[in-house]
Amino acid sequence: MAVPPSTYPRRLLPLFLGLFQGALLLFFALFVTYDEPSAQVEDTNLVANQVYSTFPFFQDIQVMLVVGLGLLLTFLPHYGFSALTHNFLLLNFSMQWALVLQGLLQHFHHGQIHLDLHKLLISEFAAVTVLISVGAILGRASPCQLLVMATCEIPIYLASEWVIVTCLGVLDVGGTITIHIFSCYFGLGVSKALFRATQQPLHPKETPTPSSDLMSLVGTLILWVFWPSFVAVLCQPGDAQHRAILNTLLAMSASAITTVVASSLLERDGKLSLGHLQNGSLAGGVAIGVVADMAMPPVAALALGSLSAVVCVLGFRFLTPLLGRKLKLLDQCGIHNLHGLPGILGAAASVLAVLLASKDTSGSQPSQLSPAGGNASEVVEGQGGDRGAGGQALCQAAGLAVAIGASLLAGLLTGATLRLPCLARPPERLCFDESLYFKIHDQAESPGPDRSAEEGALALKE
Amino acid sequence: MAVPPSTYPRRLLPLFLGLFQGALLLFFALFVTYDEPSAQVEDTNLVANQVYSTFPFFQDIQVMLVVGLGLLLTFLPHYGFSALTHNFLLLNFSMQWALVLQGLLQHFHHGQIHLDLHKLLISEFAAVTVLISVGAILGRASPCQLLVMATCEIPIYLASEWVIVTCLGVLDVGGTITIHIFSCYFGLGVSKALFRATQQPLHPKETPTPSSDLMSLVGTLILWVFWPSFVAVLCQPGDAQHRAILNTLLAMSASAITTVVASSLLERDGKLSLGHLQNGSLAGGVAIGVVADMAMPPVAALALGSLSAVVCVLGFRFLTPLLGRKLKLLDQCGIHNLHGLPGILGAAASVLAVLLASKDTSGSQPSQLSPAGGNASEVVEGQGGDRGAGGQALCQAAGLAVAIGASLLAGLLTGATLRLPCLARPPERLCFDESLYFKIHDQAESPGPDRSAEEGALALKE
Amino acid sequence: MAVPPSTYPRRLLPLFLGLFQGALLLFFALFVTYDEPSAQVEDTNLVANQVYSTFPFFQDIQVMLVVGLGLLLTFLPHYGFSALTHNFLLLNFSMQWALVLQGLLQHFHHGQIHLDLHKLLISEFAAVTVLISVGAILGRASPCQLLVMATCEIPIYLASEWVIVTCLGVLDVGGTITIHIFSCYFGLGVSKALFRATQQPLHPKETPTPSSDLMSLVGTLILWVFWPSFVAVLCQPGDAQHRAILNTLLAMSASAITTVVASSLLERDGKLSLGHLQNGSLAGGVAIGVVADMAMPPVAALALGSLSAVVCVLGFRFLTPLLGRKLKLLDQCGIHNLHGLPGILGAAASVLAVLLASKDTSGSQPSQLSPAGGNASEVVEGQGGDRGAGGQALCQAAGLAVAIGASLLAGLLTGATLRLPCLARPPERLCFDESLYFKIHDQAESPGPDRSAEEGALALKE
Repeated sequence: MAVPPSTYPRRLLPLFLGLFQGALLLFFALFVTYDEPSAQVEDTNLVANQVYSTFPFFQDIQVMLVVGLGLLLTFLPHYGFSALTHNFLLLNFSMQWALVLQGLLQHFHHGQIHLDLHKLLISEFAAVTVLISVGAILGRASPCQLLVMATCEIPIYLASEWVIVTCLGVLDVGGTITIHIFSCYFGLGVSKALFRATQQPLHPKETPTPSSDLMSLVGTLILWVFWPSFVAVLCQPGDAQHRAILNTLLAMSASAITTVVASSLLERDGKLSLGHLQNGSLAGGVAIGVVADMAMPPVAALALGSLSAVVCVLGFRFLTPLLGRKLKLLDQCGIHNLHGLPGILGAAASVLAVLLASKDTSGSQPSQLSPAGGNASEVVEGQGGDRGAGGQALCQAAGLAVAIGASLLAGLLTGATLRLPCLARPPERLCFDESLYFKIHDQAESPGPDRSAEEGALALKE
Repeated sequence: MAVPPSTYPRRLLPLFLGLFQGALLLFFALFVTYDEPSAQVEDTNLVANQVYSTFPFFQDIQVMLVVGLGLLLTFLPHYGFSALTHNFLLLNFSMQWALVLQGLLQHFHHGQIHLDLHKLLISEFAAVTVLISVGAILGRASPCQLLVMATCEIPIYLASEWVIVTCLGVLDVGGTITIHIFSCYFGLGVSKALFRATQQPLHPKETPTPSSDLMSLVGTLILWVFWPSFVAVLCQPGDAQHRAILNTLLAMSASAITTVVASSLLERDGKLSLGHLQNGSLAGGVAIGVVADMAMPPVAALALGSLSAVVCVLGFRFLTPLLGRKLKLLDQCGIHNLHGLPGILGAAASVLAVLLASKDTSGSQPSQLSPAGGNASEVVEGQGGDRGAGGQALCQAAGLAVAIGASLLAGLLTGATLRLPCLARPPERLCFDESLYFKIHDQAESPGPDRSAEEGALALKE
Repeated sequence: MAVPPSTYPRRLLPLFLGLFQGALLLFFALFVTYDEPSAQVEDTNLVANQVYSTFPFFQDIQVMLVVGLGLLLTFLPHYGFSALTHNFLLLNFSMQWALVLQGLLQHFHHGQIHLDLHKLLISEFAAVTVLISVGAILGRASPCQLLVMATCEIPIYLASEWVIVTCLGVLDVGGTITIHIFSCYFGLGVSKALFRATQQPLHPKETPTPSSDLMSLVGTLILWVFWPSFVAVLCQPGDAQHRAILNTLLAMSASAITTVVASSLLERDGKLSLGHLQNGSLAGGVAIGVVADMAMPPVAALALGSLSAVVCVLGFRFLTPLLGRKLKLLDQCGIHNLHGLPGILGAAASVLAVLLASKDTSGSQPSQLSPAGGNASEVVEGQGGDRGAGGQALCQAAGLAVAIGASLLAGLLTGATLRLPCLARPPERLCFDESLYFKIHDQAESPGPDRSAEEGALALKE
């Protein structure tokens, strides 16, 4: 435990990343090209319209992942640089790695992979799983461990997504099952295998300060604002996309209000918990993803948003401490409450929606389910429509089971890998402390009490 | 005054919000649906194009309200969570409440309300009035009082907007009269009735710190950047919208520069005041709203932006202290200087613009006024064009008078309601102190020197 | 040096800005109009589509410049208000000044300048040069000096851009040569002439604190996210724009990863330097600008991004200290490492790309170079295509030489002008200290041991 920071192996990270970047360059040099420029005016207009219809969504999602999620993770007061930088690094690494693997798997025609904005977007979605899983072990794992985790998680995600969406034909336009549930249980599996039975005591640097909590709350608000873009980007343009945006807005609005209700009812003194706010407000967005473009009345979106906020707050209040005590499970950011429980709720709602939608529209509109196939290119044509509502409902449930099962198993294996001695874990004393990874300027120069110390002093006087 | 926090009634907020959310669910279940999916390809393209043309503006406005305005209000150093959270909560509450009322009033056809992005946008605009009015009493009112204020303000806003836009045919595409002036005087009325004749002494927690002022300045910059989207979103696509964007950009650019001039001329030592910068830079955006899409030369936008910045800074320097002394009026954020005075300036400019535009274009382009009808669906067709420039100018003035009169009266009544004993007001000692509403982590745990001091100490030990 | 702040001339700034704003109003009143509203429905649709295709990019760029770049500059812990405000002020001033000059030079038809969004965008690009150049002297120059610098830089930029793009026909869609290289060497020239041979000692307020570094890192991330919009906004819609977006994304992703590799290899203890991260992650975006829309394989974008990150980090580690020692050159923000070196790399890459592209496509696609002419309206028609690859390559090199030569010379002259005694430079003791320019609230109230306390102490002494 008391390994001095001087023996922390520092050459591993640049070596690993440098080799990866070199291999990526080689891969791109050999296999990746752009589409030929279009010769026709109509083709040019088509490309231009695709750019205009996708790029604003893409930028919104980039803001969410780079700025919003990064800030959300800065609630650890001595770990802000790490949260922002590791999140940023993992996004880029995982995106490139997913681009390579997806290229190899899906798009290998005539020895060439044709790159476009849509493929980058799909790779970005794959990278999101890593960014979520990190939340389970944030602050206690080294950057090298996180990169190895990303290396393992991306191919497993791609395989699981292929099984769930392409083989089972699960409808999941916003990635509730394929992304949120998968990454949550993968992260929990990693955490369990990595930290085993040792219950972690509360670390003195683990407690947020007001200023770190404020930054984190700003991150939540940024995520909240742009979430509809994340859910709707892969929808069919037109009604389905319009409906997905509206449903997401309604669900997240209900989440925001219900979180305040649930949090202040559950805390003994009726005060709001910032952890609840930071997570509960987003729970509706997680849950709505799988049903966002389905034919369901607006009240369902509101109800789902409210319910998932309640479930999320209850999870923080009761389930996380319970899992910590009983299973010795560490879930640093509470990803089970934000991604796991609301995700399962959403998956259950999708079963219901499929069953009820078919009743409402039996005969008249048989194709109402199929436009929901957000990853439309990957859904076998007509499958959603042909198999009937009962079959589709079964598929949704099967998809949920596959996502949980596969991710837990793979997470446990990955977590065991992360215990390899060569992947140095930070010593307990230096957990949640970014001075292990970053040159912090003012440690040397200004050891005196600073600004916020003064605020503390002021608070004591009063 | 010295009510201990333990007696502060904490169950009221979740009770109120919980009941509201339940009622909303019921209302949506009974009355609200989506449009039927369009059967034709052309209809699908139409919906898709509407989404692409509205959604980026909508997202910009969401960023403004949730992140920009939230951060702007964090200038109170011990009230950052409250500023962000109450702003966020009130936005969601007011938006849902406006959705219900607007649904009942306007869109009730055949027992069904058809929800779409445009209706959400209109509700969001209604919610803006609440967020502005809060500025007058920020830090001295409890969340319950704010929610009751929102409950009263939304229906009054809808009525006043109906009178001003639909009955009087006032042209006000950016909401200068209907939103900014209305909410400003409503807020001042509430403040007057709530705090009555007691002049509030300067509270020790009222003074911004450099770090809280910095966050607030970032909020201003975010609002400044996205303001053109707010003004232009409801314009007619094409020239009118293009002109509204350009006019807003020019006005806000002039505001930014003129604020620096005015602020450093007015302060005795020539230094800039952050309060002036945070507000004056936005004054041009408030004033330009009412004339943004009218036919006027670009110089008018520049002049209006400059003038409103001057008026705003003068208001902070002279009028606010005067109103405080003479009328015992509390205006915590100076909303009268940012929304009231520039709004009146803009309304006056609209009278002038209407009169001059008709002269320039007499005969040749009689319809130049009508495309300005941003809330086009609500303007009686042809009204703006038919009644002649003098009549329209009178209408603009009448709209201004209605907005000020109705909002002041309604605000005073609402403020009196907020004095009800059951709506606990925070005791003077705990004003501007969010520890009354939030579980603040480190108050209990880490009273010592903080973060960097502690790190410094650790670093020295090693 | 020990000039007391009381003698600091404070009326110069409002006088200068006030006169400028007045002159601008006069200029707009005399010469600037909007386009006539279009009479035809097709024209209206055309304008609407132009707004929808340009405005989201424009807003992204505004966020970059106002929020992203502003925050990036807040790494100086006692200079955050100044960084944000001076950046904001200079952007508006330079944009208006460029609008006037460009109007006079290019768009003067029949005594009227027709304003549109595209012209505002071009002026905004001109303003970027000023915001970059400021980085060389940030914290040691007064606002008046910065405004005079902007007044000189804008016309010189417009002349240099005219020579490079219009006369030489250089292809530079993302402004690598015309904006980044030009502004970098202009800023260095100003710095050299302004501070001459005096090597500046390390100022105690120059060192970032964790909280100022965190804000700066957030600024970097915002810039990183929106950079593709900056590069692609002036591209031909369709394939060229699509390719420019993809190339920029790839280059910046490679930059992000390579910066981490290079930084942790170069620091003795293997820790990451925040300065490297804040700048290196963006280096790829600087370099890719000039080749973003050219016909080149994706691997070239990755390689260019990686290389420029390496060059940027090496520059910070070795070149900046060397230039400081040998040439007594002050480069406060390291703009030579972020804009100069990666820019030169990009220019060299463009020579290569032009030569190689012609080989690949000899005969078959002679027009592949011409769609790259982003500032298409300004490129003499067919020039890029007609002169052959060798000629075009020579032109690119000549453009680089012109940009460096003209900017260095003009920068030196401008820097000499800034030494005029009437343009007060802040005394050494008050460099990096915004209490010289801003009313900082808590100076009076909180005489404790921190930041403002120190300022308070200073104030007492004086």
